Amino acid sequence: MSDYKKIMLAVDLTEESNAVADRAVALVERFAAELHIVHVIEPLSLAYGGDVPMDLSSVQEQIQEQAKSHLSEFATRLKVPAENQHLIFGRPESEIQRVADDAAADLIVVGSHGRHGLALLLGSTANGVLHGASCDVLAVRVGDSE
Amino acid sequence: MSDYKKIMLAVDLTEESNAVADRAVALVERFAAELHIVHVIEPLSLAYGGDVPMDLSSVQEQIQEQAKSHLSEFATRLKVPAENQHLIFGRPESEIQRVADDAAADLIVVGSHGRHGLALLLGSTANGVLHGASCDVLAVRVGDSE
Repeated sequence: MSDYKKIMLAVDLTEESNAVADRAVALVERFAAELHIVHVIEPLSLAYGGDVPMDLSSVQEQIQEQAKSHLSEFATRLKVPAENQHLIFGRPESEIQRVADDAAADLIVVGSHGRHGLALLLGSTANGVLHGASCDVLAVRVGDSE
Repeated sequence: MSDYKKIMLAVDLTEESNAVADRAVALVERFAAELHIVHVIEPLSLAYGGDVPMDLSSVQEQIQEQAKSHLSEFATRLKVPAENQHLIFGRPESEIQRVADDAAADLIVVGSHGRHGLALLLGSTANGVLHGASCDVLAVRVGDSE
């Protein structure tokens, strides 16, 4: 009854995603749950706003192609079928929640940094996900823990 | 390797603590982990600052006695021995982290509300725990999910 049935693993596809994935896989195995993976690409226009000096659509396309192939490799290693792989454009926090809702996931697994450096950025994604989510959220501590 | 070995369940001992405990117990069973429980009492002086009009130490003592017996009942239902029950005074966020660190817990399980009402309060505890923690944090969604 309190078992997790569908787990949504949110990754940024950096090396640290492996540690986050390890935890998600441990949960998937223990609960015999279904695993989904979501990777959100933040559009350059969202990330840089009015500071984008020119048409970057070809850059954006390359980023997208790269992300697609990275996500596919990553998911294949975890034996996650294509239909459970979600490559999305938008703001990470809200899109992770939306995809989790759409898939009726009962747990979102996301990486979370400490206080320093990239912490702020990734911490705030974990934070944002935590706040809006309609299901449980597991924040997996990655990188420098202090 | 990615298994959880020691789980710190943080509860406010409201009714919703049962739902949070259910998740913690499911994890404890699946991972054959050890369960600890922490309940933090926020001193009246911390909660109300300069607005405390008189000496409330007897009220504080009654609150503490009540909390002690509630925690003991709660923990007994979950078969958590006395030495794994932690009743602490202070700010919930920092004390939950400290107790988890002291016990070398690898996962903190805490309740988290949605956006509304008490949400703000409890959400911010989950948040504060998430930010400073040196281990993973599972935020269990309780109460009104929207």
